Amino acid sequence: MVDLGPGDALNQVMAARDMSWGQSPGHVRDVHVSEVRWRLPFAVADYVDFYSSLEHATNMGRILRPGREPLPPQWRQLPIGYHGRAGSIVVGGTDVRRPSGQRSGGDFGPSRKLDFELELGFVVGKPSRPGEPVPVDRALAHVFGAVLVNDWSARDIQAFEYVPLGPFLGKSFATSISPWVTTLDELAAVAGPTQDPEPLDYLRGESFAFDLPLEVELDGRTVSRTNARHLYWNVAQQIAHLTSNGSSLRTGDLLATGTISGPGERERGSLIELTRNEGPFLENGDEVVLRGPPLGEVRGRIVA
Amino acid sequence: MVDLGPGDALNQVMAARDMSWGQSPGHVRDVHVSEVRWRLPFAVADYVDFYSSLEHATNMGRILRPGREPLPPQWRQLPIGYHGRAGSIVVGGTDVRRPSGQRSGGDFGPSRKLDFELELGFVVGKPSRPGEPVPVDRALAHVFGAVLVNDWSARDIQAFEYVPLGPFLGKSFATSISPWVTTLDELAAVAGPTQDPEPLDYLRGESFAFDLPLEVELDGRTVSRTNARHLYWNVAQQIAHLTSNGSSLRTGDLLATGTISGPGERERGSLIELTRNEGPFLENGDEVVLRGPPLGEVRGRIVA
Repeated sequence: MVDLGPGDALNQVMAARDMSWGQSPGHVRDVHVSEVRWRLPFAVADYVDFYSSLEHATNMGRILRPGREPLPPQWRQLPIGYHGRAGSIVVGGTDVRRPSGQRSGGDFGPSRKLDFELELGFVVGKPSRPGEPVPVDRALAHVFGAVLVNDWSARDIQAFEYVPLGPFLGKSFATSISPWVTTLDELAAVAGPTQDPEPLDYLRGESFAFDLPLEVELDGRTVSRTNARHLYWNVAQQIAHLTSNGSSLRTGDLLATGTISGPGERERGSLIELTRNEGPFLENGDEVVLRGPPLGEVRGRIVA
Repeated sequence: MVDLGPGDALNQVMAARDMSWGQSPGHVRDVHVSEVRWRLPFAVADYVDFYSSLEHATNMGRILRPGREPLPPQWRQLPIGYHGRAGSIVVGGTDVRRPSGQRSGGDFGPSRKLDFELELGFVVGKPSRPGEPVPVDRALAHVFGAVLVNDWSARDIQAFEYVPLGPFLGKSFATSISPWVTTLDELAAVAGPTQDPEPLDYLRGESFAFDLPLEVELDGRTVSRTNARHLYWNVAQQIAHLTSNGSSLRTGDLLATGTISGPGERERGSLIELTRNEGPFLENGDEVVLRGPPLGEVRGRIVA
């Protein structure tokens, strides 16, 4: 058994390179072999999770707030996001313990609504300076590459805790990422979806999305097939937004897309959407594998 | 001019020590001299901001949701918290640039409602293991010490963005902390407020609060005087809660209390409360100083 993925050794490489498309850093991802024990491929600085799939946000609004407008009023005007727990990011293959928490008032116990979330994550290489917003058209120069992300979620814990300050323990028990970082030049870019209304100046750049087929396998059965090209907001807009208040990027920042769902019934990136919140959710022993070549896979088994 | 505060050199000391009360690490805080340029006293791992003042949460509910029950339904059943941006934490004395952002839909510009928040922060020394919740009665052994925190807030940006995933750019532009870490044995502990209903088992420990007078000075005038002893939830409960889902603590985690307000009109820890959201808020050139001996002070001047 060989240990690969030196934790934070890649951060120095990432910080030094301006990774525009077409400039490969060499064989960063070609160390994949069988018989290795993966470790995190980089040291995570801050972890931000966005909410950039229109289909996912719409599905969630219909499930959680039936009979009302499913999208939050600002959804089309800015890429909604929040900070997650960097310290709970683990490499794919790591078992995921079912979290306990308050499932409702006074009721503490193991989550009964444990779910996966199919996401991409973009890893910041070149940092930016505090107080200097990154223009949307220069944002990709700060992205070293991409990983697959499973942002495990305990829907019952999250539902009880999240108003008004957002998700906390419903998410912070584990987030799994794939064991290597794939540079952007290995991903196929296409035009992104039409954005209506047109974004404000600071969010208006060249339209793009990544044409990246994705699938979710649960205990050997494919339960969802979708594509990252459906995402409404792109990572350049997310970086422009994140830094628009003067916030800076650090090498190792991880910007995840939020759950990726497509328009079809079987293109949903979470069980809460696939089962319309009726379950079944994940049982102990279940294994979830997210796949999206060339990003590889993220594997995780639920344990008690 | 001497540089003090080696960034992350203190983290190694902190990780090694079990800082129960009465065990001083020596003269960690006694390096304070004039003519120094402070740097962050430790490397921040994850930053969590809680919402642990009953008076603050009640004031905010009355201001933002008038005519309705001011406290969120779960407020008395768990210590509400969320993750902030570790990368935007700066040492006191650093100028704070007024952030720009979407103040409402389609309206991007400098915040018109820039505010301070008077808080304490607890710094994790000894880490905990993933999957092993920290019992409330052993939580203080993981706390290395405390700092003063000014969690600067842009109320207009925050109001537009924060539903449903919580504060993001309204907070992430800057959070200032005092330049040294004061160990808990230097703080006076007293019994905490009565908690009703009685907390669940995992949150039920010895009642305590820190009897720590705090004040806020704005351009040389004291605008608020309060005390940390008013806080409803204590840091031991917050650690027990944070780790109850299997999440672990890392050396350098910063757990802030949220704004500290007391029962009186002049005991409120933010301008939105002191002015009932009518302002004035902070102007360019304003200087805010938070004081709470023995924690020292946190100073910050607003620049354009």
